[in-house]
Amino acid sequence: MNSFPNVRIVLIETTHPGNIGASARAMKNMGFASLYLVSPRQFPHEKAIWRAASADDLVKQAVVCSSVEEAIKDCRLVIGTSARERRIPVPLLNPRTCGERVVAEARVGHEIAVLFGRESRGMKNEELQLCHYHVNIPTSEAYSSLNLAMAVQIICYEILCAGLIGDTPLQTTTQVEDKDTHGWDMPLATAEEVGYFFEHMEQTLEAIGFHDPANPRQLMTRLRRLFNRIRPDQMEISILRGILSAVDQLRADNPERNAEEMEER
Amino acid sequence: MNSFPNVRIVLIETTHPGNIGASARAMKNMGFASLYLVSPRQFPHEKAIWRAASADDLVKQAVVCSSVEEAIKDCRLVIGTSARERRIPVPLLNPRTCGERVVAEARVGHEIAVLFGRESRGMKNEELQLCHYHVNIPTSEAYSSLNLAMAVQIICYEILCAGLIGDTPLQTTTQVEDKDTHGWDMPLATAEEVGYFFEHMEQTLEAIGFHDPANPRQLMTRLRRLFNRIRPDQMEISILRGILSAVDQLRADNPERNAEEMEER
Repeated sequence: MNSFPNVRIVLIETTHPGNIGASARAMKNMGFASLYLVSPRQFPHEKAIWRAASADDLVKQAVVCSSVEEAIKDCRLVIGTSARERRIPVPLLNPRTCGERVVAEARVGHEIAVLFGRESRGMKNEELQLCHYHVNIPTSEAYSSLNLAMAVQIICYEILCAGLIGDTPLQTTTQVEDKDTHGWDMPLATAEEVGYFFEHMEQTLEAIGFHDPANPRQLMTRLRRLFNRIRPDQMEISILRGILSAVDQLRADNPERNAEEMEER
Repeated sequence: MNSFPNVRIVLIETTHPGNIGASARAMKNMGFASLYLVSPRQFPHEKAIWRAASADDLVKQAVVCSSVEEAIKDCRLVIGTSARERRIPVPLLNPRTCGERVVAEARVGHEIAVLFGRESRGMKNEELQLCHYHVNIPTSEAYSSLNLAMAVQIICYEILCAGLIGDTPLQTTTQVEDKDTHGWDMPLATAEEVGYFFEHMEQTLEAIGFHDPANPRQLMTRLRRLFNRIRPDQMEISILRGILSAVDQLRADNPERNAEEMEER
């Protein structure tokens, strides 16, 4: 499946064929299929196939070009990855804004290229000057040299994420997808059901001598806060009340013992 | 430079040493230094050093553990990476919300672990049950099997990005301004303390005949999920264990009754 048929990844003078394969896998994992190779050092090569795993089709179908110009000639948006600040800066994107721009332009049908330079020296100035934008992947200052395929992975990941968002604004994805909103397997308990559970718990804890209403020491306050934080579902409330009933039964079978005794001990 | 001294990356039973090295490089590129390895297949290994490039120091200083529990025992936030939907879901993050949550909690000093499973089979269910959150990296449906180090790269990248936003509010702080990060009155319990509580609870429930290990019917799975969702603080764990001890005592005072009797009834 090619989710981005009009977005190509262009690798320039890649030295290690393993990096070509790993880049192909990263691309296919994120829904990309179109790989261009500008003057690769060693290609075709078995290491590229091996590192590609199930993305070997991308490697076999890669378009090999002899210049960057040839690789991008039909493109309307060209973005170059660059680790360094350039003397004459061009508009700079971060991976996230790069993803958003690629998706926005892909949706209107533009052919788009994202360029990745050599493992050792990145992109040359004259290559960067062919680009509408530069994109800079943030790194630690202590060790900023990303593996080539890792850079491809991050850029493709950000394009995929931007694509998943659809036309809605980006900040909506930051919502935590948790049980309160999506995909839980049981309905949440109602406030009433939780209320009954608290009553039951208080009675049981008093009966076994753990809770003394005359000297409550925040116990029930803390337990209420704890269980309200969970927002239990109905199955969970049912399990918890089952446990309380088992304890009640244990006590009922032992009538000579009572809370006062417990306290004296 | 270690920008995230209290965030550890935990790789579980990694098969290929090259993936350990590539993960270490991905980590160091993003400002991480703390690598834990649970029962790696081949380690130490020259391939791990070679693929790490200038992150060989992380590989050499990696902490090797024999269990996931050991690797996370002092952690207050545990996140597991999972490709699959689980039958009993736990709160799910995407890499972006994962980054935001990790940064928010790292800022208040919590020890944090992000777990990555085996290349072939990911994380086991019982390992995922140790986690407060699962994080799922979006992929193409056609080829969803990410290389391990690529997954580490994406998660570390998102944490770095969330950290770059600085102390200004993230768009999402509404989601994370809760007990886990702000203004709680007690320290959160560590994974080890919660682990002891689960053991105690299971023993007590078995002793009172509520839990039958031979026929568990998801009981402990659901209870673990429930209490992991709470992320109890140390006072709460102490209250809960106090309740279990009171029940244990009640049972001990009544020696002729036992679990079998309960079941017969």
